[in-house]
Amino acid sequence: MTAGPVLPRTGIGIDVHAFAAPDSPRVLALAGLTWPGERALEGHSDADVVAHAAADALFSAAGLGDLGSNFGTSEPAWAGAAGSVLLAEAARRVRAAGFTIGNVAVQLIGNRPKVGARRAEAEAALSAAAGAPVTLSATTTDGLGLTGRGEGLAAIATALIALS
Amino acid sequence: MTAGPVLPRTGIGIDVHAFAAPDSPRVLALAGLTWPGERALEGHSDADVVAHAAADALFSAAGLGDLGSNFGTSEPAWAGAAGSVLLAEAARRVRAAGFTIGNVAVQLIGNRPKVGARRAEAEAALSAAAGAPVTLSATTTDGLGLTGRGEGLAAIATALIALS
Amino acid sequence: MTAGPVLPRTGIGIDVHAFAAPDSPRVLALAGLTWPGERALEGHSDADVVAHAAADALFSAAGLGDLGSNFGTSEPAWAGAAGSVLLAEAARRVRAAGFTIGNVAVQLIGNRPKVGARRAEAEAALSAAAGAPVTLSATTTDGLGLTGRGEGLAAIATALIALS
Repeated sequence: MTAGPVLPRTGIGIDVHAFAAPDSPRVLALAGLTWPGERALEGHSDADVVAHAAADALFSAAGLGDLGSNFGTSEPAWAGAAGSVLLAEAARRVRAAGFTIGNVAVQLIGNRPKVGARRAEAEAALSAAAGAPVTLSATTTDGLGLTGRGEGLAAIATALIALS
Repeated sequence: MTAGPVLPRTGIGIDVHAFAAPDSPRVLALAGLTWPGERALEGHSDADVVAHAAADALFSAAGLGDLGSNFGTSEPAWAGAAGSVLLAEAARRVRAAGFTIGNVAVQLIGNRPKVGARRAEAEAALSAAAGAPVTLSATTTDGLGLTGRGEGLAAIATALIALS
Repeated sequence: MTAGPVLPRTGIGIDVHAFAAPDSPRVLALAGLTWPGERALEGHSDADVVAHAAADALFSAAGLGDLGSNFGTSEPAWAGAAGSVLLAEAARRVRAAGFTIGNVAVQLIGNRPKVGARRAEAEAALSAAAGAPVTLSATTTDGLGLTGRGEGLAAIATALIALS
């Protein structure tokens, strides 16, 4: 086997959080933004499924574990950090491991909120956190599954990185 | 930070549609083909989850929004278009934004139809629409989840593109 | 259209298996390892969702069909093979079709087992099978969906390959 050019690496990340009770004082944190008036997600963290999926896709591509192994009980300093802060730190760790980040693409899966009107704002916040282009799209599931029944929100992300 | 080579970009797209009632006059549209005798999917569109996931993966990679923002209520001309027509138009918009499309890979998730016998035909139809290689695979979920219970079909796609 | 550089190709694969009954004599096979004491997955195969998703992502990227078309009823010799053996054979077929494998990234979705303590061991087993870096991460779904309810485990993989 002869050595070819070094290929970039791809990674994948899914995250799911349940909606908080309607009378919860929590405010929805999603895609690096806050969404007053929208139903919040529950969680020990800010439950930003978009930022979490993006961070996990980066860790996955780089072989650096996942959110749990990076920011879990072994590193309590990160326990309450916002999703965008975790995404920024994930990107920092991926670069520290010798990689350049090409892009991250995240799709939100759920009925609400509608992200179209704030897409540019969300992509700017996420891209600033990652230091690389992060795109945000959205879909629904025709009333089916956990997101279709309105139990929570899911996000799925893919990332592309390469050795610097 | 020195400028390295420009990396390709990856994107992701999921789509889900519910099955139509057994006595629905709709015909299943899937992967750019029609499937007479198979249970149809419901939807305002032709509900081709494979073509829709592929189109969304392309938009996601390019940062051009999603099916809803491209073909939704703001562009009624596309409201009734077939999935393969939407995939072709998505590919056209991605190229118009300056990208070359490397490939799109789509996996169908569900119990029926079995795509193996028509895989080559479906891949030819989807690749012709996208103007680039589109592969089609399939899996089941062991009777679990929305597809395992036979409530509908899901598809997941990833795409790779690069600046021309 | 002028010919640009040949781009790498991306692929995607999801697999889901249901948990076996608590009194099943099966032992959990996951990520190329056995997990005594953990609840096993049911299936005709060893039900290693991580290895299966990785193999399907490779087939998907290369346009070589899927697990069913490669190892299904038409090739009974593979019917009882371990997931890591199927992953090795998938990688062999992808290389035989002219591709170099860049990497495979797999995320396990489910409540148990916790993979962190055995991540390095699992990644070594999977990477040895694929002959290329395979990373393993994990997430939960906040109690929602088929994995959150403890009905089974899911895995999602993405792969990057290029013509040799």
